[in-house]
Amino acid sequence: MKITILDNDISLKRQLEQGNEQQLQTVREVIQDVRAKGDAAIKYYSEKWDGFAPENLRVAECEIIEAVKSFDPQLYGDLQEAADNIYRYHNEQKRTGFQLPLEDGSYLGQRITPLDAVGLYVPGGSAAYPSSVLMNVIPAQVAGVKRIVITSPAGNDGKLPDAVLVAAHILGVTEIYKVGGAQAIAALAYGTETIAPVDKITGPGNIFVALAKREVFGEVAIDMIAGPSEICILADESAYADEIAADLLSQAEHDTLACAVLITTSDDLADAVADQVEIQLSKLPRQAIARKSIENFGHIYVAESIKDAVRAVNSLAPEHLEVITENAEKVSEMITHAGAIFIGRYSSEPVGDYFAGTNHVLPTNSTARFASGLNVDDFIKRTSVVYYSEKTWQQNAPKIARLARLEGLEGHARAVESRGWDKGEE
Amino acid sequence: MKITILDNDISLKRQLEQGNEQQLQTVREVIQDVRAKGDAAIKYYSEKWDGFAPENLRVAECEIIEAVKSFDPQLYGDLQEAADNIYRYHNEQKRTGFQLPLEDGSYLGQRITPLDAVGLYVPGGSAAYPSSVLMNVIPAQVAGVKRIVITSPAGNDGKLPDAVLVAAHILGVTEIYKVGGAQAIAALAYGTETIAPVDKITGPGNIFVALAKREVFGEVAIDMIAGPSEICILADESAYADEIAADLLSQAEHDTLACAVLITTSDDLADAVADQVEIQLSKLPRQAIARKSIENFGHIYVAESIKDAVRAVNSLAPEHLEVITENAEKVSEMITHAGAIFIGRYSSEPVGDYFAGTNHVLPTNSTARFASGLNVDDFIKRTSVVYYSEKTWQQNAPKIARLARLEGLEGHARAVESRGWDKGEE
Repeated sequence: MKITILDNDISLKRQLEQGNEQQLQTVREVIQDVRAKGDAAIKYYSEKWDGFAPENLRVAECEIIEAVKSFDPQLYGDLQEAADNIYRYHNEQKRTGFQLPLEDGSYLGQRITPLDAVGLYVPGGSAAYPSSVLMNVIPAQVAGVKRIVITSPAGNDGKLPDAVLVAAHILGVTEIYKVGGAQAIAALAYGTETIAPVDKITGPGNIFVALAKREVFGEVAIDMIAGPSEICILADESAYADEIAADLLSQAEHDTLACAVLITTSDDLADAVADQVEIQLSKLPRQAIARKSIENFGHIYVAESIKDAVRAVNSLAPEHLEVITENAEKVSEMITHAGAIFIGRYSSEPVGDYFAGTNHVLPTNSTARFASGLNVDDFIKRTSVVYYSEKTWQQNAPKIARLARLEGLEGHARAVESRGWDKGEE
Repeated sequence: MKITILDNDISLKRQLEQGNEQQLQTVREVIQDVRAKGDAAIKYYSEKWDGFAPENLRVAECEIIEAVKSFDPQLYGDLQEAADNIYRYHNEQKRTGFQLPLEDGSYLGQRITPLDAVGLYVPGGSAAYPSSVLMNVIPAQVAGVKRIVITSPAGNDGKLPDAVLVAAHILGVTEIYKVGGAQAIAALAYGTETIAPVDKITGPGNIFVALAKREVFGEVAIDMIAGPSEICILADESAYADEIAADLLSQAEHDTLACAVLITTSDDLADAVADQVEIQLSKLPRQAIARKSIENFGHIYVAESIKDAVRAVNSLAPEHLEVITENAEKVSEMITHAGAIFIGRYSSEPVGDYFAGTNHVLPTNSTARFASGLNVDDFIKRTSVVYYSEKTWQQNAPKIARLARLEGLEGHARAVESRGWDKGEE
């Protein structure tokens, strides 16, 4: 890994895959087709791209039961415990509305209501991602969303991975469709004979899924378009090089565009981590991916002081930040921009990916400057409430009418003035 | 206005102005130019489109003082009181993070931090919109945003409207630029010699502003792209036709694409409101706009029951809803989807546009199904925090490693397993 003296703000912004014109054209066609032809279009595209068009788009109850039966009981317990932890953390995010009393019984309020229906896209391919199911479904459930739908492309055997079905089962989600790609996003946004539309779509996917989410945005809500994973570690001489290297590689193995950065006040640690990264890389199954990521976006910065290091972290606004220093908690309190912070030696980042309870859907590519990880608020909306009594209206109507006229909106002024005056019944 | 028997879900979705390819091309050029040439590009485009390129982009302190001095003192008081009300309501939205203790001193947390810098676009043109200044700036201030920037196109006289400067002055905002259009959005997103970039851009604007906001989205955060205003009134025989008509017209006068709908259980009220709309329309200064809006999107539905009416409202998910019925509060509690609810006869919708304290930036075009009005949370972000003690790590590391391997991510498993084992110093 490159080692550089830190002497300025740093950035880990990468130009993300935007898709090309042809891909966008394809996605638009798929969406049009699904809107026009419903299930038939879904089957057509599933056959074309996934090589398999299931007779029944919806996963049958018996398929879920079968998956649960054949699943490793220890892993089942692990997933169950992870789910419990995630529920526990997200329950803390729940909120209620408020009512602010004014004079004479008048009041202003804020009501919180959940979305009616949300859809989670779970990517297919070689691996199964049960953790995505937990991380996306649980905040929606805690928010009070009644209808939660999962959709994911079936494999060549016409099945979804057991791990995905088991995770859904643990959470009590039963509306699961074997549909992937842009056609899945179109179905969730506009509905088909089988799949009723939802109000929000979350979950990661390939470039076609990402483009489709952008296209239907506005018709429904979407979560962020997630970029490749990032880890930034802020460490001093108290940290162990092998552990730092392992954590850097845990994110580098995700994607050749993933980004792993160490900022340290220790020259010795910098050198030792660079060595350890090489050693560990050579034994990593996903070595090819991790090596490219480290070559392209891996970097070790040596800072003069913790204060300089903190400033650099805040300029990065990394998705994941580990603070492994003396007084790590205190140091972490100086961080203003990060998706998630892991404090101390034993809070290795994958702890949060799978188990601790915090969400692993986090803002990337410096968007932690203004964005947050997935949370319960992503599945609620706020309605403001105004109740004015006659007296409050009477006191304030002239002011409101003046302000409306200041903006040239006479109709607004007249509406406020229209009450009561001439009818005199009150 | 058309009167129809309500017999099904209704929709007020309109095809919104998306801009054409040429407009998008123009906007992209402007953004490129501002990124490359900074202030010079801003002045070039301001001259070209606004007919005026100010020597100093930033409004001088003396201009603000002059505006305040020459401003009507009564109106100044009205704006001040409106600001106080808006602060009061939005203060209730403030939130703090939390810390959830686990075993052995371990904990999970959520930290809330404000955005560093936000920019508000205030449209220019014939009218001044001080209420936009109040509604966009105050939630950001309550959130704790330190740098708040306003940008707005100068008039032919090279000035911003007094009302805008006065509103900014009341809120203590002093960083104000005489820049409009796509060039303003580009400057806020990427910065120039004079204008430092911000993290989020809010505020309405013409099609060029809207397209520019879409283009820079991701680089910075943006608020929603607001559609034309909507009002839905749910009323029974207890309501007064002239007041209902006045409130419908108050939104219709905004835009020819604005939408005004009455849903009532009273045939008599339906007829009387249709008459009143005609009578009042003929005397309205913005008659031409309001008449088109009413012709295109105005509608009166007669419902069998309040229950049916409520269902129809929820299918509309209107931006503004007035409930003017017996037991209006009770009825309002059945509403699940609306941007803002105004309860009872004296809570005419413009009360919320200017004065009551709730926000007037609200979700339109049925997006109240999943979106909320502008609020303090739009200007904060959440950082999750994980602290695992050695013991908590020891207990859970095997489970986390198993879950990582289930997803094929060996590097994640190794990271978690890398702690302590062999070094045995703890």
